Amino acid sequence: MLNVGVVGIGYWGPNIVRNFAANKRTKVVACSDLKQERLDYIAAIYPTIKTTTDYRELINNPAIDVVAICTPVFTHFEIAKKALEAGKHVMIEKPMTSTSTQAAELINLAEQKNLTILVDHTFLFTGAVRKIKQLVEGGDIGDLYYFDSVRVNLGLFQHDVNVVWDLAPHDISIMDFVINQPAQAVTANGADHVGNGLEDVAYLTVYYPDNIIAHIHVNWLSPVKIRQTLIGGSRQMIVWDDNSPSEKIKIYDKGIEVIQTQDQIYNTLIQYRTGDMTCPKIEPIEALALEVDHFVDCIEQRQRPVSDGYLGYRVVQILEASEHSIKNKEKTVKLTALS
Amino acid sequence: MLNVGVVGIGYWGPNIVRNFAANKRTKVVACSDLKQERLDYIAAIYPTIKTTTDYRELINNPAIDVVAICTPVFTHFEIAKKALEAGKHVMIEKPMTSTSTQAAELINLAEQKNLTILVDHTFLFTGAVRKIKQLVEGGDIGDLYYFDSVRVNLGLFQHDVNVVWDLAPHDISIMDFVINQPAQAVTANGADHVGNGLEDVAYLTVYYPDNIIAHIHVNWLSPVKIRQTLIGGSRQMIVWDDNSPSEKIKIYDKGIEVIQTQDQIYNTLIQYRTGDMTCPKIEPIEALALEVDHFVDCIEQRQRPVSDGYLGYRVVQILEASEHSIKNKEKTVKLTALS
Amino acid sequence: MLNVGVVGIGYWGPNIVRNFAANKRTKVVACSDLKQERLDYIAAIYPTIKTTTDYRELINNPAIDVVAICTPVFTHFEIAKKALEAGKHVMIEKPMTSTSTQAAELINLAEQKNLTILVDHTFLFTGAVRKIKQLVEGGDIGDLYYFDSVRVNLGLFQHDVNVVWDLAPHDISIMDFVINQPAQAVTANGADHVGNGLEDVAYLTVYYPDNIIAHIHVNWLSPVKIRQTLIGGSRQMIVWDDNSPSEKIKIYDKGIEVIQTQDQIYNTLIQYRTGDMTCPKIEPIEALALEVDHFVDCIEQRQRPVSDGYLGYRVVQILEASEHSIKNKEKTVKLTALS
Amino acid sequence: MLNVGVVGIGYWGPNIVRNFAANKRTKVVACSDLKQERLDYIAAIYPTIKTTTDYRELINNPAIDVVAICTPVFTHFEIAKKALEAGKHVMIEKPMTSTSTQAAELINLAEQKNLTILVDHTFLFTGAVRKIKQLVEGGDIGDLYYFDSVRVNLGLFQHDVNVVWDLAPHDISIMDFVINQPAQAVTANGADHVGNGLEDVAYLTVYYPDNIIAHIHVNWLSPVKIRQTLIGGSRQMIVWDDNSPSEKIKIYDKGIEVIQTQDQIYNTLIQYRTGDMTCPKIEPIEALALEVDHFVDCIEQRQRPVSDGYLGYRVVQILEASEHSIKNKEKTVKLTALS
Repeated sequence: MLNVGVVGIGYWGPNIVRNFAANKRTKVVACSDLKQERLDYIAAIYPTIKTTTDYRELINNPAIDVVAICTPVFTHFEIAKKALEAGKHVMIEKPMTSTSTQAAELINLAEQKNLTILVDHTFLFTGAVRKIKQLVEGGDIGDLYYFDSVRVNLGLFQHDVNVVWDLAPHDISIMDFVINQPAQAVTANGADHVGNGLEDVAYLTVYYPDNIIAHIHVNWLSPVKIRQTLIGGSRQMIVWDDNSPSEKIKIYDKGIEVIQTQDQIYNTLIQYRTGDMTCPKIEPIEALALEVDHFVDCIEQRQRPVSDGYLGYRVVQILEASEHSIKNKEKTVKLTALS
Repeated sequence: MLNVGVVGIGYWGPNIVRNFAANKRTKVVACSDLKQERLDYIAAIYPTIKTTTDYRELINNPAIDVVAICTPVFTHFEIAKKALEAGKHVMIEKPMTSTSTQAAELINLAEQKNLTILVDHTFLFTGAVRKIKQLVEGGDIGDLYYFDSVRVNLGLFQHDVNVVWDLAPHDISIMDFVINQPAQAVTANGADHVGNGLEDVAYLTVYYPDNIIAHIHVNWLSPVKIRQTLIGGSRQMIVWDDNSPSEKIKIYDKGIEVIQTQDQIYNTLIQYRTGDMTCPKIEPIEALALEVDHFVDCIEQRQRPVSDGYLGYRVVQILEASEHSIKNKEKTVKLTALS
Repeated sequence: MLNVGVVGIGYWGPNIVRNFAANKRTKVVACSDLKQERLDYIAAIYPTIKTTTDYRELINNPAIDVVAICTPVFTHFEIAKKALEAGKHVMIEKPMTSTSTQAAELINLAEQKNLTILVDHTFLFTGAVRKIKQLVEGGDIGDLYYFDSVRVNLGLFQHDVNVVWDLAPHDISIMDFVINQPAQAVTANGADHVGNGLEDVAYLTVYYPDNIIAHIHVNWLSPVKIRQTLIGGSRQMIVWDDNSPSEKIKIYDKGIEVIQTQDQIYNTLIQYRTGDMTCPKIEPIEALALEVDHFVDCIEQRQRPVSDGYLGYRVVQILEASEHSIKNKEKTVKLTALS
Repeated sequence: MLNVGVVGIGYWGPNIVRNFAANKRTKVVACSDLKQERLDYIAAIYPTIKTTTDYRELINNPAIDVVAICTPVFTHFEIAKKALEAGKHVMIEKPMTSTSTQAAELINLAEQKNLTILVDHTFLFTGAVRKIKQLVEGGDIGDLYYFDSVRVNLGLFQHDVNVVWDLAPHDISIMDFVINQPAQAVTANGADHVGNGLEDVAYLTVYYPDNIIAHIHVNWLSPVKIRQTLIGGSRQMIVWDDNSPSEKIKIYDKGIEVIQTQDQIYNTLIQYRTGDMTCPKIEPIEALALEVDHFVDCIEQRQRPVSDGYLGYRVVQILEASEHSIKNKEKTVKLTALS
C-alpha cells in the first residue's frame, strides 16, 4: 500500500484525491492547500485524510511515499524538487515545469534517487488515444503523414500563461505519444487581442522525422468548442472528435497510392482509394483511474511510466520553443533531445 | 447587349457559358478550346455559338466585347493581355495570374484602355459570404479578432501547383473581401508526402492591421471534407460551415469584455458574454449568375467590380509570398500594396 | 425549515437527497431503503441523516414534514397513501402510480388533508422545456399543429413494465405541460421481441382538442440514442434535440399560410414562409434543484405545483390507455378528465 | 434497341428521358405532355425526339416498344392499360395506380400479353437500399425486429392526395423489398391542419409475419428535413440517414441476447452487446440509370423486375388501407395477398 499526499486541491486536485482513494494499492493520507475552504471541502468528504496549509508537512512526513502536485505551474519545480529530495515518488500536473531546464533537473534528481516521476498527461490514458496509438503502432495507418489538431472554445483566459501553455500540452503530449519520435523543430505564431501580452489565438507547427508535420490550433476566443484531430497516413486516416459522445474515433480506409511512372511529363501518378469507415468501440474507462494504476505499477516494478519525466520534458521544450518563435516572428526553433 | 467569347471550356468553362447565355444583357457568340470534343459538347447544347480551337479568333473578332478566360493558370496572362490589347473587357478564372508582376501589368493595361477586369472569385457572390461581409461591415461583430479557415478533403492532386495554389485562393479572396484592409505579411509552411516538390498539406498565416490574424489550413490528404471558417469579433462571432445544407452561417452572440482594473496583480479583467445563436436565412441564388450581372453593371457603369484586378493581384501576391515562405523555412514575407 | 424523509435511495433517490440537502429551506432527516448497503452509502456522505430499512419509521416520525418516494412504481400508492394519512406532503417519482384510480385516490386524500403532492416529472423544470412552454404560451409559434417525440436507445429492459411505462412518462408529461389541454383519446401499438409480453418498441398517438396530434416513439432496441421532439405551429416550429450539448432548442421562423380562394378547382392556396433559425441560450440550471424549490414554495404558499397530482394522474391515465390499446388491436381509447 | 415513348415530362419525366437516352440499349423516340412549353424544353435538348400533346400518338406508334408514364397518379391506370393493350412494355411512376383493383387489372393484362411492368420505385436501386437489402438477406442483422422510417420536411402540399400518398410510397416499397414478406395488416392515423380533408401529418404501422413491426412517419409540416430509417435486428442494427452525404448507412454491431433462465422471478435474462460501428462505402451510381438497365434486362430476358407490378400493387394496397384506417379511427385493416 502506497501512502499518498496531495498538494493543491483546487480544480483538478479533488479528482486526483478521488482516484488515489479508490485505488486498492494506494491510500491518501494528507492534503495541503493554501485555502482553508478547500481543505474543509476535502475533509468533509474524506474524514480520515489529514489537511494542512503547509505542503512541507507532506514532504516531511516519513509515512508518505508519493506526492501528487496539483498546484499552479510556476510552483511545480520547487515542490517536486523538495519531494524528490525527501525520497518521494512524484506525480506532477501538466505541464511539468515552467522551463525545460527545470524538467531536466527533476529527471536527473529522480534518477539519482531511483524515484518515479509521472506527469499527469491524462489524455494518454483515454480509450480514444490508446486506440489511436494502437492503430499507428500496429501499422494499420501505414506511414504517418500529418497530425492536425484543433482545440478551441470560448475559454477561461489565464492570467499568467498564454493559450499555448493552457491548451496545447494536451495535443503535444498526444503527438509525442502517437508519433513516438523526437520532434525536430517548432514554429509558432499567434495574436493577443486583450493587450496583456498573452496570446489568445495561436498556431504551432512541429516537425518530426520522416516528413511528418504536426500542427495545433489553440484558441480561447472561439464561439464553439472544437476538439478535432486529423491523422493522415499512407493506408488509413483517422478523425478523432473528442466532443462526440458515441463516435470519437473514425478510421477511414482511404488513401493515395503514388506510382512512379516513366511518363515524361508527370513522373508520379496518384491513385485514390476509398473504402469503408469504421468507428471502433472505445472502452468506457476513467483515464485517471488507469493512470493512477499505471503509476503504481511503475513504482512497484521500477519501470518508466508512459508519461514519464522525459515526455514531460519534451512537452515543456515545445511550449518554450513555441513561445520563443511567437516572440521572434515565427522563427523556426530547432529542438535537441535530452541526452 | 454585350457579346462574350469564352476561352477554355473544360471543367468550369461550361458554367461560365451557361451564365453568360442566361443573362439578358449578354450573349455568348464564340468559344474556344484546344480539345474538339469540348467544342462539340458546347455546340450540341448551344447551336448558335461558334467554336474554334484557336482562341485568337475570339481576340480578333471585333464583334466580341468581353473575353472570359477559363484556361489553366499559366496561360491567363498571355490570353488576358492579348484580349485587353484588343480592347476587350476580361473575366479571368482565379487565381488571376502566375505572378503578381503579371497581375500588375494587366491592371495597368486595363486602366490605360479603360477596360474592366473581373477575377472570378465566385465565392464572393455567394449568399454566405455576402451575409458575412454585411455582418462585419455593419459592425455587428465589433472589432475583428481573427479569421480561421479550414479547407481540406481527399483532393485531386494537381500536377503543376501545390495545395495552396489550388485551394487557398478561395479563402484568401474571402478574407480580403471581408477584412477589407491590405494584408501586411505572410508566413507559411507545409509538407510534400508524394515527393514531387508540391505540398499536399499547408498552413498559411496572414497578418492584417489592427492585430487581426488570419490562418488557412489547406490539405489534399484529409479523409473528410471540411469547409469551416471561424470569425471572431469583440461582440459577435461567426461560424461558417459551407458543407451544411441548411445551417451555413451561425452567428453567436458571444464574446468577451476586457475591463481595465486598478487591481495591482491583474491589470485586466475579462468578462464572458453568452447569448443566443442565430442562423440567418441565406438566399438561394446562384453566385455565378449574380457575378455575371455585377460584371455587366460594372462594364456599363464604368465601376470597379468587387473582385477586380486589384483583389486578384492581392490574392496572387499572398500565394507567391506563401510559396516563398514555405521554401525558406517559414520566413515572414512582408507585403507592399500595389500603388 | 421543512424536514424531509426519503423512501428509496436506489438509482434516483440519491439525487433527491442531494437536492433537498442543498436547498436552504429543507433538511433531510431520514432515509429508508430495503438494502443496507444503500443506507451505508448515504450515511457515509451525510453522517447526520438517520437511516432505516423500514419506511414506516419515516411515516411515523412526527418531525418529518415531507416524504419523497423514490421506490418502484408498484409501491408508490401504498407508501404515498400512508404518508398522506400521516399528514405528510409527498413527492412521488414518476409515474405517479400503477393505476389512475390510485392516483385519483391520492389526489382526493391530499385535498382532504390540505397537503401538497408533487410528482417528480423532472423534465418540466429543465431550461429546454421551460423555454418551449414559454414559446407556446407566449403565442410565438401560433396555433399548435403537432407534437412528435422520439425517445429511443439500446435501453435497459425492465422486468415489470414495458417500454411505454419506462420511457413515455417523460414525453406525456411534457406534452401535457406544453399543450395545456386535456388529452381526448389515445391509440397505441407495439411489439415484444423478447417474448415476455412486454413491448420493447411502441408508438402512441394522443389526440388533443383543436386538431392537435401528438405522437411518441419509444424503443429499447435502437442502436443510437435519439431524444428529438418536433413541435409544429402555424407561425413557428421548434426542434428540441436533448442530446445536443449546445443547440438543444432550435426555433424556426417557418410555416405555411392557408389562403381560402374562390378558385373553383382548389379551394385553398398554401404559401410557404422561411426565415431565420434561432437557437436561444438555455440557462444551465439543475432541473431538480428548481423543482425542489418550487415544491417548497407550493407547500409554503398552499399552491398547486406545476407537476401536481392532476398532471401525474393524466400521465398515468394515458399510460393505462396505451396499454389497453396495445392489447386490443390499437383500439382508440377515449379519456375523460378527472372532475 | 428498344424504342421508348415518355408520357408526361413535368418534374420527373425529364430524368426518365435522360436515362433512357443515355442507355445504350434504349432510344427515346417520342414524348407527350399537355403543355407545349414542356415539349419545347425537351425538343431543345433532344432535337431528334418527336413531341406531341396527345399521348395516344405514342400508344398507337408501332415503332415504340416501351411506354414510360410520368403523369399524375389518377391517370396512370388509363394510360398504362392502353399501352399494354397496344402491346407496349410499361414503366409507371410510383404509386402505380389510384386503387389496388386497378393495379391488379394491369398485372393481369400484362401477364396475358407477356409484357413487362416496372413501377418506378427508384429508391430500390440506390446504393443505400441495395446495401441494406444485402445486409438483411445475408443474415448479418439476424432476425428482423422492426423497421422505423421518418420522412418529414416543410413539403409541397399536394392538392389531390394526402401526405401518405405523396411520401410513404418510398418507405413502403423499401420495406417490402427489404422485409421480403407480405404485410399482414395496417393501421394509420393523421391530422389535417389546412382543413381540406388531406392529412399533412400521418403515422402508419404495418405488421409483418414473425412479429416484425414497421412504422412510418410522414409530415409536410416539419421545419427540418429528416430522412432517417432505423432497422433493428437480433444481431446488428442499421441506421440509414439519407441526408448524409458521406455516412448514409451505419451498421451497429449491437444487440441483445435473450437467455431463458430458471430463475423463479424473471424468466428471461437480457444481455447487451456493443461493438464497432461500420459505415460501408456506398457506390456512387445513379439509381435511375441502374433501374433503366434492369428494366431492359427484364424485358429482354422475360424476367420479373425487382419493382414489378406485384410490388407496385402491394404498395398501393397499403396506401389504400392506411387511408381507410385514418378515416375509420385507426381501425386495423387486414391485407390479403394478390393470388
